[in-house]
Amino acid sequence: MINQVEFSNLAKLIIEYRMSLLVIGSLALDTIETPFGKKEYTLGGSATFISTSASYFTDKVRLVGIVGYDFPKKEIEFLKSRNIDISGLEISKDKKTFHWHGVYNTDLNNRESITTELNAFETFDPIITEKFRKSEYICIGNVDPTIQKKVIKQIINPKLVMADTMNFWIEGKPVHLTETLKLVDLLMINDSEARLLSGEQNLFVAAKKILKTGPKILIIKKGEHGALLITPNTMFIAPSFPLEKVFDPTGAGDTFAGGFMGWITKTENISDENLKTAVIYGSAMASLAVEEFSLEGIRNLTKDKIMDRVYEFKNLINFEVNSI
Amino acid sequence: MINQVEFSNLAKLIIEYRMSLLVIGSLALDTIETPFGKKEYTLGGSATFISTSASYFTDKVRLVGIVGYDFPKKEIEFLKSRNIDISGLEISKDKKTFHWHGVYNTDLNNRESITTELNAFETFDPIITEKFRKSEYICIGNVDPTIQKKVIKQIINPKLVMADTMNFWIEGKPVHLTETLKLVDLLMINDSEARLLSGEQNLFVAAKKILKTGPKILIIKKGEHGALLITPNTMFIAPSFPLEKVFDPTGAGDTFAGGFMGWITKTENISDENLKTAVIYGSAMASLAVEEFSLEGIRNLTKDKIMDRVYEFKNLINFEVNSI
Repeated sequence: MINQVEFSNLAKLIIEYRMSLLVIGSLALDTIETPFGKKEYTLGGSATFISTSASYFTDKVRLVGIVGYDFPKKEIEFLKSRNIDISGLEISKDKKTFHWHGVYNTDLNNRESITTELNAFETFDPIITEKFRKSEYICIGNVDPTIQKKVIKQIINPKLVMADTMNFWIEGKPVHLTETLKLVDLLMINDSEARLLSGEQNLFVAAKKILKTGPKILIIKKGEHGALLITPNTMFIAPSFPLEKVFDPTGAGDTFAGGFMGWITKTENISDENLKTAVIYGSAMASLAVEEFSLEGIRNLTKDKIMDRVYEFKNLINFEVNSI
Repeated sequence: MINQVEFSNLAKLIIEYRMSLLVIGSLALDTIETPFGKKEYTLGGSATFISTSASYFTDKVRLVGIVGYDFPKKEIEFLKSRNIDISGLEISKDKKTFHWHGVYNTDLNNRESITTELNAFETFDPIITEKFRKSEYICIGNVDPTIQKKVIKQIINPKLVMADTMNFWIEGKPVHLTETLKLVDLLMINDSEARLLSGEQNLFVAAKKILKTGPKILIIKKGEHGALLITPNTMFIAPSFPLEKVFDPTGAGDTFAGGFMGWITKTENISDENLKTAVIYGSAMASLAVEEFSLEGIRNLTKDKIMDRVYEFKNLINFEVNSI
């Protein structure tokens, strides 16, 4: 029989051994206007949404980012309360936090950026600590591809590296992005980005082309029309969860990424079948996020609420086949 | 023991007893231009696509429509070869067949009507024969709602009446359409039509509103983004089948309707679960249709080819749930 101390040490060892998810991206204070209201200087940023979303699947989320001296203490406490390891969060002493101000149009399909003040984020150049460099799963938000590349090169033997990008980098830094894509296992972009990156109008043709540039797995987000998962051997199409009211789409894609990578980290399984399940978890998390302003929809979730949404998804999508 | 004559009579009786599908709509000779080619005076029309598509599910398809004196004999023979009962097909002696000439844009999402010559179809006012009035399943293509209403009123005790409509009637004959909708069990329209008909931007809110106007079942077609099925108790979302090349989208919606109603007629089951399966059969048929010009994609199908597509759909959509 083992005593309590031994048991406790063993438990710690098991917890330490469990796979971890390294999240790199922005933390921001957003001002958001939708047809349903306005919220000022609310917690935002890709790394915030990704790590919060993933924290419902694994307690081994590690966050790397930078904020300013004005970043609210209570938000630091919030991240800690989600068991997110924030030892990689830099706090600038002389600069403010990244601030974005966006206004959505009536049907929420378009938004205008009123202000983009990079502030502390402008010089974001993350050095990954020894401990974090051994993370197995990596999720890099939409940042400069040169930074993405630099981050990936610091990781020792990752099992899956996922990255996001956007039109701004596809058009502005194509050569750097091409180099970065060679190091990325899973690229997650939206439909217009997939078309721009590949030069192809048809998404399935675009996907095949992109899969030749480095990533082995491609996820194309289509907003209200759902998401596509494409690997060399499989294709999976998930709709968006039907919502009668979308309150604020900010962070939906990052919340999806967090749910997806959270599930993968939890299950340590990157089979095609499990990638499909991960897409559903990502979609479920995103649907919960957009029902409220900013991060509010995923601040206080329960596993039951997440599972309810996932089972609703199953009813919405799955069907019986009987032969003709 | 029964002898061969008795057996044959019994078999006939059983076949007679099987449920039938009455299809009412247009038959046309279309000239179609897509980025991939041009075809002149090729067989088209809603009733043509619906009945051909349904004929793979049941041999009890009954067609009601009108063509001109120029309608090719070989196309009459084709419809007969699909076991479609064309005793309700009127052939005008002095007018030509409905002719439509459409040109699609590069990405096939829009088309321009160059010519719409109604010809014989202009005076289409179907009298349903005694035999046809006892049909159990009714599928009415996109025609004037006053004609739709007149047709439905002639049917004795139908089990399911499905109708299609379009912007032209929603805007042009709203009062007649409202009356017709009260007699329709299943309305099948596209997303922009659902928004126009309900005055709601959100499709799920729109659907709820439309379900209060008569139809108990609503199918909203979203083109390349798939289809929604909404009943008072269920919702189902099916994506479109991923195709690297869509050759000609003409008739896709009618082919969907034919596959859907063909499956329902075959199985005589309008449970929510079976409606979902019917959506998949409809989607599978539509995906096969758009891979070729006009009706070509569904002229010579085999059950194996249809089932292959349905199983591919299953792999594309279905997923496993494991709890977090």
